[in-house]
Amino acid sequence: MSVITLLTDFGTKDYFAGAMKGAILSINPQANVIDVTHEIPPQDIRFAAFTLANYYKNFPRGSVHLCVVDPGVGSSRRAILAETADYFFIAPDNGLLSFVFDEIESGKSAPRLSRGLPPRGFRVFELTNEKYFAPKVSRTFHGRDVFAPVAAHLSKGIEPEEFGAEIEDFVCFEIVKPKRVSQSEIEAEIIHVDYFGNLITNLKTEDLPAKFVIQVNETRIQRHQKFYAEAVKGEIFSILGSAGFLEIVAFRDSAERLLKAGAHQKILLQAEEE
Amino acid sequence: MSVITLLTDFGTKDYFAGAMKGAILSINPQANVIDVTHEIPPQDIRFAAFTLANYYKNFPRGSVHLCVVDPGVGSSRRAILAETADYFFIAPDNGLLSFVFDEIESGKSAPRLSRGLPPRGFRVFELTNEKYFAPKVSRTFHGRDVFAPVAAHLSKGIEPEEFGAEIEDFVCFEIVKPKRVSQSEIEAEIIHVDYFGNLITNLKTEDLPAKFVIQVNETRIQRHQKFYAEAVKGEIFSILGSAGFLEIVAFRDSAERLLKAGAHQKILLQAEEE
Amino acid sequence: MSVITLLTDFGTKDYFAGAMKGAILSINPQANVIDVTHEIPPQDIRFAAFTLANYYKNFPRGSVHLCVVDPGVGSSRRAILAETADYFFIAPDNGLLSFVFDEIESGKSAPRLSRGLPPRGFRVFELTNEKYFAPKVSRTFHGRDVFAPVAAHLSKGIEPEEFGAEIEDFVCFEIVKPKRVSQSEIEAEIIHVDYFGNLITNLKTEDLPAKFVIQVNETRIQRHQKFYAEAVKGEIFSILGSAGFLEIVAFRDSAERLLKAGAHQKILLQAEEE
Repeated sequence: MSVITLLTDFGTKDYFAGAMKGAILSINPQANVIDVTHEIPPQDIRFAAFTLANYYKNFPRGSVHLCVVDPGVGSSRRAILAETADYFFIAPDNGLLSFVFDEIESGKSAPRLSRGLPPRGFRVFELTNEKYFAPKVSRTFHGRDVFAPVAAHLSKGIEPEEFGAEIEDFVCFEIVKPKRVSQSEIEAEIIHVDYFGNLITNLKTEDLPAKFVIQVNETRIQRHQKFYAEAVKGEIFSILGSAGFLEIVAFRDSAERLLKAGAHQKILLQAEEE
Repeated sequence: MSVITLLTDFGTKDYFAGAMKGAILSINPQANVIDVTHEIPPQDIRFAAFTLANYYKNFPRGSVHLCVVDPGVGSSRRAILAETADYFFIAPDNGLLSFVFDEIESGKSAPRLSRGLPPRGFRVFELTNEKYFAPKVSRTFHGRDVFAPVAAHLSKGIEPEEFGAEIEDFVCFEIVKPKRVSQSEIEAEIIHVDYFGNLITNLKTEDLPAKFVIQVNETRIQRHQKFYAEAVKGEIFSILGSAGFLEIVAFRDSAERLLKAGAHQKILLQAEEE
Repeated sequence: MSVITLLTDFGTKDYFAGAMKGAILSINPQANVIDVTHEIPPQDIRFAAFTLANYYKNFPRGSVHLCVVDPGVGSSRRAILAETADYFFIAPDNGLLSFVFDEIESGKSAPRLSRGLPPRGFRVFELTNEKYFAPKVSRTFHGRDVFAPVAAHLSKGIEPEEFGAEIEDFVCFEIVKPKRVSQSEIEAEIIHVDYFGNLITNLKTEDLPAKFVIQVNETRIQRHQKFYAEAVKGEIFSILGSAGFLEIVAFRDSAERLLKAGAHQKILLQAEEE
């Protein structure tokens, strides 16, 4: 059974996700449709892009990752299909695949097969072949009428080239990297706030000095822990999280709330003498 | 694999949906159980009926649509199975299938097969054959003990007639249609408010004059758009939505909140001279 | 297809549940992964334990019940696999299986097969064999890196013994039972508050005198009903619920809110003369 994963901002109160699932199963009854989330904050493309980058690699090779966070539906924004060595992605052309592309280009997930892929490791196609859309495409719900049918046909083995021409000018937003601002200081950023209120930064192991302090608004965080466990409620510390980034967490509490911090906010890392 | 879709107001915090899924899979391990929503506002039969009408047709022929919004559980309300040319529906007999029946009767989705269906296009059976219920039926959770087992047996090919006698006096609520109240005015209704706060009216393309204004509470909405895209945040306009009805939306905002409007509220459409 | 059910407190806004599903399907593409809930209140082990006890028996024999509510992730808490006559359970060793163990030991669900099970009806193994974990185990997300891979391997037929040694000192919390405090009075407890605000007590049919009053905070509840139906909105009564316990409910309203009551609170049952 071929896997099609779903990531949307449609919520689960309405018929939207259900209609997409039906559209998929009507075309490929063998598809294994897997909900990842329908709770992306409405139209938050960066939240969606970060989320996608943290689950796509866990799925079996050949999985189709269908992502619909689409503030531009009905406008002239394009719809795209991306092919990597291991996966397919279907999404509006609005930057949703930026973290995936960045990770593949920077070689962290080395392609296992070439399949004619360019050196950067992926190809992008514009979805234009209406043969693979719903017979009647609404102007406001391309999730059901464009993206889901394309994902279903793709999961049946239709070649990516069949859906439209390859393009080079797909949309990517800039991935902000930590920046050294003095001998001992690095300016970093909170790139994501998760369900528990943990603040995920763009700092990785290789960015971290042996000893450091992180400043978030007025608070200086001195403690760096290996585990979530063994702290007092509300105690704030940093920790290397499951996404591979340094996270600022409050034990059994919300760092977002306690620090009054949010996504896309700058933070400062200061190296300390050992 | 036969598809069984789930629509309930059980939420996803408790064991209710899980217990239903288990009850289905214990009877038919081959069933493909698909979550549509468990977030119908508690006991809101009209919300559920509108939602159902907007996804059932997207699923493969033969799918079983299982719907449990059941304020009368344990009382003398009946449980029913409806058969159309393409689908099966299982629900309490409380009007949940009203929009589906209205659509089928008015011929919009013409039956492809007769299968002995009456001219209106569907048959309804009362679920009385306890052979297809759980061995012990609780008084408060027919979703697990009646509806799920019946859906599972039906998906294995048991004939609808086996579950109980055909009935004619099933419950339907009235579908309010737009009403002409003067030469240039139509009284319409908001029939649904979706997850994004969009107001779905009961107005269809054929009801709309070339140029019109819609009055919702104190606000007159003059703009009619083709797409969600290309507006300023909070700008209010009307648009033909994916459910086939005119929707009143606020760009990247909630029309429900901005207009202080809600479901089942009257609105006024005024034709304007071109 | 072997069933793997998921119960977590991860929410559905982030990648957590998706990453677990991918990890499972990468190891066993034939697994039928079923969401029960990801909305357990964060780190509420007792809520999770009660929920689990109310759906596990509905699933087909051989199902793997994967449960991750894990405040101690990364600490020295152990991970366990429990085998009963009919099911497998995978969870952190923090009491999450307490209600299941209590039910099996007290014989309510009599084992159908011995399979070398001890008289109490289940065996528990500590998960230590890293061969069945992810190649690299993060310190904060054992759901993805330990529990999901183990569940997937188990669903493929790997024997429980393969995952680690059998243990006897697994964690169980005490299941509070109703206690007679005078000739006519029983002290009971609210063990769970469900999505609708119903208060589930630890009282069973056999604890109930023919006529009784229940005191919750300042309110005396005299009415005992057989059904949810046929009451006035907000009317408070007790009823035998689908979990097999006496529940205190407010008709179409929240008893939790109206009575200002919560989980783990004591209540008093007073027998009345007939």
